[in-house]
Amino acid sequence: MALRTPLSRACLRTKISPATSVLSQWRRGNATVAPPVTQDATGSKGPTAMVFMNMGGPSTTDEVGTFLSRLFADADLIPLGRLQNYIGPLIARRRTPKIIKQYADIGGGSPIRKWSEHQAAEMCKILDKTSPETAPHKPYVAFRYADPLTEHMYQRLLEDGFGGGKGGRAVAFTQYPQYSCSTTGSSLNELWKWRQRLEGKRATGEVDPSGSIQWSVIDRWPTHSGLVEAFAQNIEAKLAEYPEDRRDNVILLFSAHSLPMSVVNRGDPYPAEVAATVWAVMQRLGMKNQYRLVWQSQVGPQPWLGAQTSDTVKNLMKKGNTDMVLIPIAFTSDHIETLYELDKEVIGEDAEGHEGVKRVESLNGSPVFINALADLAKVHLHSGVACSPQMLLRCPGCVSERCLEQKKFFAKQDQRLEAV
Amino acid sequence: MALRTPLSRACLRTKISPATSVLSQWRRGNATVAPPVTQDATGSKGPTAMVFMNMGGPSTTDEVGTFLSRLFADADLIPLGRLQNYIGPLIARRRTPKIIKQYADIGGGSPIRKWSEHQAAEMCKILDKTSPETAPHKPYVAFRYADPLTEHMYQRLLEDGFGGGKGGRAVAFTQYPQYSCSTTGSSLNELWKWRQRLEGKRATGEVDPSGSIQWSVIDRWPTHSGLVEAFAQNIEAKLAEYPEDRRDNVILLFSAHSLPMSVVNRGDPYPAEVAATVWAVMQRLGMKNQYRLVWQSQVGPQPWLGAQTSDTVKNLMKKGNTDMVLIPIAFTSDHIETLYELDKEVIGEDAEGHEGVKRVESLNGSPVFINALADLAKVHLHSGVACSPQMLLRCPGCVSERCLEQKKFFAKQDQRLEAV
Repeated sequence: MALRTPLSRACLRTKISPATSVLSQWRRGNATVAPPVTQDATGSKGPTAMVFMNMGGPSTTDEVGTFLSRLFADADLIPLGRLQNYIGPLIARRRTPKIIKQYADIGGGSPIRKWSEHQAAEMCKILDKTSPETAPHKPYVAFRYADPLTEHMYQRLLEDGFGGGKGGRAVAFTQYPQYSCSTTGSSLNELWKWRQRLEGKRATGEVDPSGSIQWSVIDRWPTHSGLVEAFAQNIEAKLAEYPEDRRDNVILLFSAHSLPMSVVNRGDPYPAEVAATVWAVMQRLGMKNQYRLVWQSQVGPQPWLGAQTSDTVKNLMKKGNTDMVLIPIAFTSDHIETLYELDKEVIGEDAEGHEGVKRVESLNGSPVFINALADLAKVHLHSGVACSPQMLLRCPGCVSERCLEQKKFFAKQDQRLEAV
Repeated sequence: MALRTPLSRACLRTKISPATSVLSQWRRGNATVAPPVTQDATGSKGPTAMVFMNMGGPSTTDEVGTFLSRLFADADLIPLGRLQNYIGPLIARRRTPKIIKQYADIGGGSPIRKWSEHQAAEMCKILDKTSPETAPHKPYVAFRYADPLTEHMYQRLLEDGFGGGKGGRAVAFTQYPQYSCSTTGSSLNELWKWRQRLEGKRATGEVDPSGSIQWSVIDRWPTHSGLVEAFAQNIEAKLAEYPEDRRDNVILLFSAHSLPMSVVNRGDPYPAEVAATVWAVMQRLGMKNQYRLVWQSQVGPQPWLGAQTSDTVKNLMKKGNTDMVLIPIAFTSDHIETLYELDKEVIGEDAEGHEGVKRVESLNGSPVFINALADLAKVHLHSGVACSPQMLLRCPGCVSERCLEQKKFFAKQDQRLEAV
């Protein structure tokens, strides 16, 4: 109970009241904390670090081994029980040669870093114009399993004059539109861990040292109108490649990374939020085409959420449905799951390269999408809240102490945001 | 492929064009088919039978045995494999005494018939005013496992002058807002079966005898604005029972009947559509309270979709969350799953009757809800389509021949609707 009240209340404020806002500005104007030294702060509340969080991917085939060993060590993503530290590296080592081949087949590495850096930089340019009071906005990328890792991003933040006694404001912006403890939750746990190590209790002896970075989180955005529009436009562009008499009969298969049933049954919010995105996109498209939400990338023998993308395509082909469009609905840029799994395995093998089976472009450099990111960020920066109320509700079946501590930390940031 | 084209195309028409509409009226005016004899047809397209489909429930404890034996015989609902006809009755018999006790505890029977008949009748009164051209609207109820059974409803339709050579128009209106093959699919399979037996090929020797009923289906409506509003108003009313300082911290638990994972993994659309309802209701409520979508009523040893409602409440209580509101989100009236399972088992036992754990009212007689039904029906009657495009897409893993034939039948109805 001690925890619950602050956690629940902290994020229920939706707007800073005008009075608080004036007080905040006064406090900021009279603060004794030095502004970050390397930033060119033009706005009354800037500079602001915008940190894009994602899983990342190896930029070259040489990085595959390290990437996989980090990935299989993450119990938030792949829960392997008490033997995680033993089984994880074993699985990683066994899978490395196969995965190296897959990355070689898609051009030698993942484009996710290139796209993340591009999206973050472009969004910051827009934000500088639309939210001058929090400008300048400085783009950062923090990956969970590949460079730039969360720890390196945090060190760069400190080097750039954020925190470390100098204060400053940073937004952890998840690049997973739908929240899962396996993805956004894992990234937040990692961010919280390095914050504690680099400028929190483990670095300074204080839980909340003065002049540390004020964090807030954009934790989910499954039905943001700009996101939905970006998906819809890419789907329409792909449908336009079919002759007009076939177009309305194309089946849309929205494909998202699956979750182990142990995670689903713990109460992870991800399946429901992915479904919300799919429904919103279908509404935007006028519910014209037939569709299904399907799940890809299952690993290992334990049960995962289905129907599986691969089985679905094979079954539909058998039933005579040969016009299908695959839509990666839970990632915002290309990565191995689109370029290899969907393009080479599902389309190339399951559908035997049938010309009627296509994949829509990932959002990548879509200006509609990047504008959506800027809109989300602007609304968040002006909301005065540290995260959504929903983020602070632990999964009913959660037993992770780290999750609990992470949520306590971000809940408290809400109080700091008001005080600044 | 032979099937696919008509199935897919049949329901892609969203509106009758003005030209078609005039032609339809001309054809109707010049039809040689006699109008149904017992109807007082005041509208140019009426009378219209509005058939509410639902699972039903035993009205008295005497009916429990028969109800359960029908339920466990339904492979669309509870797939028990090749031994269904042997295992089903066994499970039904074993469970009967326990379930009789449960119905006795909630007043001796299910109120679902009372509510269904009320909702259908009230909706028809509204429709008579808002859609005079299809008036009069005649309410019918067709339950899957209890009286009035689908076959009896169909016989009543024939007695009332619909079909059987006299033509006439009927709408199968599922009372499950979200589509599952276990629920709406099962009811449609049953409707199709009795249509074949009573006025189709098995009755007349003809696949599509002239003067048979013209059917169309309202097959899903998970985010209809009136449905969402009705849920939201009931939730707000329940939240208002908490003292103001506790209200915003109440956790909302949206609870839906679970599905076996074998059905989920076959590609059943239900989990995603339930999630769409939840998201829409939360958006209407301003995303203020914390929430989760959870799943209830698992039966038997096979894996079902979770997190389970019961476990969730127990786990949240353990974590110190004692203010929770349970919201039945996939049924539209009270039944054993609300009155016994949620009220007696989850609240009474799992939450030990804690005063902070409450359940919102089911939609039952909500005028907002009944207006929503009337709006859905009116839009459908004026759309000229037999069902949604989505209804005609079989689950990727479906192997049911009955499903296939049922879908073929409703797809063809689309052509008849235009021709009338």
